[in-house]
Amino acid sequence: MQRTVERMLRTSPEQPFAPADPLSACIHACVESAQACIACADACVAEHDRALGRCIRLNLDCADLCTAASHILSRQLAPDLGVVSMALQLCAAVCDACAYECSRHAPMHAHCDVCAAACRRCTEACRVLLATTVPTRRFQH
Amino acid sequence: MQRTVERMLRTSPEQPFAPADPLSACIHACVESAQACIACADACVAEHDRALGRCIRLNLDCADLCTAASHILSRQLAPDLGVVSMALQLCAAVCDACAYECSRHAPMHAHCDVCAAACRRCTEACRVLLATTVPTRRFQH
Amino acid sequence: MQRTVERMLRTSPEQPFAPADPLSACIHACVESAQACIACADACVAEHDRALGRCIRLNLDCADLCTAASHILSRQLAPDLGVVSMALQLCAAVCDACAYECSRHAPMHAHCDVCAAACRRCTEACRVLLATTVPTRRFQH
Amino acid sequence: MQRTVERMLRTSPEQPFAPADPLSACIHACVESAQACIACADACVAEHDRALGRCIRLNLDCADLCTAASHILSRQLAPDLGVVSMALQLCAAVCDACAYECSRHAPMHAHCDVCAAACRRCTEACRVLLATTVPTRRFQH
Repeated sequence: MQRTVERMLRTSPEQPFAPADPLSACIHACVESAQACIACADACVAEHDRALGRCIRLNLDCADLCTAASHILSRQLAPDLGVVSMALQLCAAVCDACAYECSRHAPMHAHCDVCAAACRRCTEACRVLLATTVPTRRFQH
Repeated sequence: MQRTVERMLRTSPEQPFAPADPLSACIHACVESAQACIACADACVAEHDRALGRCIRLNLDCADLCTAASHILSRQLAPDLGVVSMALQLCAAVCDACAYECSRHAPMHAHCDVCAAACRRCTEACRVLLATTVPTRRFQH
Repeated sequence: MQRTVERMLRTSPEQPFAPADPLSACIHACVESAQACIACADACVAEHDRALGRCIRLNLDCADLCTAASHILSRQLAPDLGVVSMALQLCAAVCDACAYECSRHAPMHAHCDVCAAACRRCTEACRVLLATTVPTRRFQH
Repeated sequence: MQRTVERMLRTSPEQPFAPADPLSACIHACVESAQACIACADACVAEHDRALGRCIRLNLDCADLCTAASHILSRQLAPDLGVVSMALQLCAAVCDACAYECSRHAPMHAHCDVCAAACRRCTEACRVLLATTVPTRRFQH
């Protein structure tokens, strides 16, 4: 997977908007986190444990936003860098929230442990990419 | 469509995190904008006009983020209101960028005109929902 | 929403691959069903009822496939009609399965009733579109 | 990525509906193909080559259906095996169509070559999974 991501980046006629290494690492982390969250939501439903309601919800939100981020980062033509920056910040935030919630259930549910680790890697990859390259954008407070 | 959105909100066992009217209006606007952007990207490709490259790109980003936002807003169980707020701000921002780009091509391409209007309605619906209800969250500058 | 779908179809430089009325009706039905399924999955999780596990699962599958179908139908440029036909058949099948499962819970959960109705409308819209226009494709048995 | 997919499968409270190896391989192939198709569509738009219109369209359809398939395969709770089988058949079909179209442009555009290879791997992974495990379902002819 990682190698295909890198090769797609390298063969685009467009110069990537960020250095190829943290960019491909971030695409890969988003895709991995999204898949883990889809699977974790399903596993949590199968546990029939009331305490997992918020975990399911955050898993689904996280999957949606990681998928959207992976798509946006996979496009090199004429990006709106403000949108890219916000998408990375939001992806990092939802992965952070999901990792925190999953980690609470990790002692009892191994799928939450695996998912929390994937989300943490994604938060980190988004932050590395943000720090390296993307101009920031003002959000409202 | 709008009526189904409203009925799904009303029949959830969870209290919506925001007043039902601006919330269902925003879900509807996100879904409408996403569909218009998917169709506009396709129509722009079919125009074979080099000037539309950025429009296609923003259409696809906008479709991804509006779809993600519509999903997040459709869930009422245990939302992370910071994530919801950021998702609304990002959705408003990408719709704004897409509406601006589409409006530049609207005199020549009627699909860009229709799409720009759908994106503008979505930006407005996100801002109304943000103003009415969702606690804001600090983004980095 | 319906009007925007129709206008996007009408303004595409490509001739739609099917008559505009059943095509726009089907796009609209897919989008409506997808949103209802996302909301119904969330509401079912919030019910904390073990009997709803399969309903949640089918809701999520149905949302994914209706969304994919709505995208495919929204594109008019150079369709692979075999793929379009299969996507419609699959969308009809998953909506059928989801409507059946939701209808079992409809007496107790009003969101399942609303969702079942949206799924049934989508099955019907897919079948109308299949009957009217799309060449069929051989699937394996 | 592959390792996370396998670990999520193994930690689910549900027995997977298929042997873990071809199932995790297929999830991974779907996710990889979807990402390659998103990137290839963007690269094709950036080429400004009229001959790539159909390639862009198939890339986008393929990305949508591979993503949906990856989600469906990532869920182990109470699958509708008919729906799963159809989703695999459709995923194989659209990957086949996309690989064929991309391979036509591969001599001129390296991204099409990389994407065609990812799509071919996905077709193969879907067929292996179909052959090994999933009961087939009757489609219309």
